[in-house]
Amino acid sequence: MNYAINLERVKQDIYTIGRYGYNAEDQGVYRQGFSDEDIKVRNWFQSYLRELGIKASMDGAGNVIGRYGDDDRKALILASHLDSVPAGGMFDGVLGVVAGLECIRVIQENNIPLKHALEVIATSEEEGRFGGMLGAQALTGNLKLDWLERAKDASGELLRDAMARCQLPYHLAMDAARDPDALIGFLELHIEQGPVLEQTGNTIGVVEGISGVFKWKIKLIGKADHAGTAPMNLRSDAFMGVADFAHEIARIIEEEGTDKSRLTIGSVELKPGFAHTVPGIAEFTLVGRDMSEDVMKALADACRRVLSAIARRHKLMFEYEQMSWLEPRYCSQDMMNLLQKHSENLGFKTLVMPSGAGHDAQFFTDMVPTGLLFVPSVGGVSHAPDEWTHWHDVEKGCNVLLQSVLELVAE
Amino acid sequence: MNYAINLERVKQDIYTIGRYGYNAEDQGVYRQGFSDEDIKVRNWFQSYLRELGIKASMDGAGNVIGRYGDDDRKALILASHLDSVPAGGMFDGVLGVVAGLECIRVIQENNIPLKHALEVIATSEEEGRFGGMLGAQALTGNLKLDWLERAKDASGELLRDAMARCQLPYHLAMDAARDPDALIGFLELHIEQGPVLEQTGNTIGVVEGISGVFKWKIKLIGKADHAGTAPMNLRSDAFMGVADFAHEIARIIEEEGTDKSRLTIGSVELKPGFAHTVPGIAEFTLVGRDMSEDVMKALADACRRVLSAIARRHKLMFEYEQMSWLEPRYCSQDMMNLLQKHSENLGFKTLVMPSGAGHDAQFFTDMVPTGLLFVPSVGGVSHAPDEWTHWHDVEKGCNVLLQSVLELVAE
Repeated sequence: MNYAINLERVKQDIYTIGRYGYNAEDQGVYRQGFSDEDIKVRNWFQSYLRELGIKASMDGAGNVIGRYGDDDRKALILASHLDSVPAGGMFDGVLGVVAGLECIRVIQENNIPLKHALEVIATSEEEGRFGGMLGAQALTGNLKLDWLERAKDASGELLRDAMARCQLPYHLAMDAARDPDALIGFLELHIEQGPVLEQTGNTIGVVEGISGVFKWKIKLIGKADHAGTAPMNLRSDAFMGVADFAHEIARIIEEEGTDKSRLTIGSVELKPGFAHTVPGIAEFTLVGRDMSEDVMKALADACRRVLSAIARRHKLMFEYEQMSWLEPRYCSQDMMNLLQKHSENLGFKTLVMPSGAGHDAQFFTDMVPTGLLFVPSVGGVSHAPDEWTHWHDVEKGCNVLLQSVLELVAE
Repeated sequence: MNYAINLERVKQDIYTIGRYGYNAEDQGVYRQGFSDEDIKVRNWFQSYLRELGIKASMDGAGNVIGRYGDDDRKALILASHLDSVPAGGMFDGVLGVVAGLECIRVIQENNIPLKHALEVIATSEEEGRFGGMLGAQALTGNLKLDWLERAKDASGELLRDAMARCQLPYHLAMDAARDPDALIGFLELHIEQGPVLEQTGNTIGVVEGISGVFKWKIKLIGKADHAGTAPMNLRSDAFMGVADFAHEIARIIEEEGTDKSRLTIGSVELKPGFAHTVPGIAEFTLVGRDMSEDVMKALADACRRVLSAIARRHKLMFEYEQMSWLEPRYCSQDMMNLLQKHSENLGFKTLVMPSGAGHDAQFFTDMVPTGLLFVPSVGGVSHAPDEWTHWHDVEKGCNVLLQSVLELVAE
């Protein structure tokens, strides 16, 4: 089938959506979930779908659903999100929504007969203003009513109040759950938000799954001392404990991890934190990831052992709290094969890779065959105004999606 | 000579002074230089000296000077400070002033004939509200008028305004400089403010000098990345640079330093400092000390080399700024021998040691033969309400001072 997407239309839509919440000062996009700008873009998107002759609706969770094809048919979902982080970029989420719509447009203008329906869904609150992936959780039946009642954003605003301002009674979010038997699969095109495709010279990433992730808060307690009067061997320097642990991270991954493992110390706070005082307390975060939960457990065990040994060596007390443990989610092997086949057929260099970041797709993996496709992020940059993906890569990603969709739904 | 100090009097004076600026809530002493409580204790100390028949005056820098002996004789100075850090302890500085006074009292009540005069000096602003050691710098002719005009405390208050509130016209601080030819020496008894005497089972520390000290502000600049999407080998993690450097500190001291070397990372700030973000920037302080300026230079060179190599290894930019470089100051060998001899004669375990903290004595080392004596700090604690020195150690320190003073000034 010699169909191809129209890059100019895709470009036009991405620029149109990018004007919602655009801030000329920092050139960032401010379209946080259930903000005025977010609800404006959702209303625009519904009208736009209708202008194109596509049935459009908003469900109780704020997801905008455009449906093409007979009501009684099973549907393939093409989805991503339209909300953004504060000062975000133009491609994150938006690309997947526009690509889904473009696939429908190609099918529509060529009158391609379908055996299944197609839905393009712009999910709501993916980025985490109230915890993230609200729309995807609603669609997959993962929401809890009591959580909806008490969820708050960083400023203390309740989710239910923010939803009410958008004419969405929060309890109706529960009604958004889809019947798995009415779906044949889920596909998402997203920017990589990392440097791997660019650095390895690949154009298309076929995602094998979303890494599992654990987050620890760790506290090492030693003794604050005068940096002049306390000899090196009589110190209980809490920072030296953090440093020695950080130094062992590479070895821990070599011994217990894989090339998909990540261990990151992103935040460190020293007390008292004065130049002339040996740090008495160090509090820091550790975030670990891998595609295998067994590997995650091995990494976590090794970190615990190493921290205990280092605490003894530096005469420190060691406390840690596990803030979260999310298991890995796997894309369907059939979907991966399909995406990889079409990418290679089109002549694109293709890499099977994990996703270290979370995506709407991860809530669908247990429900329907799910596939996730990446295109390169220039410099690996995302969640920033200078997030960019070259238009030729956008075009390639959309065409891989189109060919895969056609194989799945065309008669 | 079978004279000994009277511990009860010493105790009484230390408790009396400890009530000035005492805060019942945190049990700390708040007697910062030129505060109301500081000037109150200085006025009380002058009256007290006069009651005891000792000539008392305050010089232009706020030093209280009690002089015993003929006006035309050369003097031995016994000094320390009466100001405190915020929430400080009862012994820091105060012990040396009270011990000096007690030596004079013993000589006075026993009518011991002297060949030299004795001065007990309570120096002003040692602790650093306006930079520190103001009184000692004034007495040794190290003050500069333009500095006096512009020095400020952390709240922005000018030194000259604070001095004016104490009826001290700031330019008169210049007049406090003493003629070196009118002095035979300087002795100071101080608490150690560190753990060495206690940990090594010694009672008396004979200080060989004040360590030289350098302070650097170091900045490592990498690239902030998503902790999930950036593989370990594609990161420029600024914190890993700090950690690897900290890990090398022990080796740097083994190779380039001495048992008197100290290298301390007291403050670390990461940007952006989020758990899920690879740190793009790390700013930290490095404070180095040793008794030899050559060793200090070797340590500084090694730190620079190691930081450069680590920056290259982690793909980081490396900037540093030398905030200060103070050379070591040496006590007089004669004074050290004198103090050591009397300590050992009295049967006290004695350790020759450096001082990692600064003291008034350091400004006298180039002017007159200078000696500095330490007694143990329980748990090494100082600059805190639970600063303590056992009374039997206070007594021993005062008696070593007394015997040394008698040898220097008695006929």
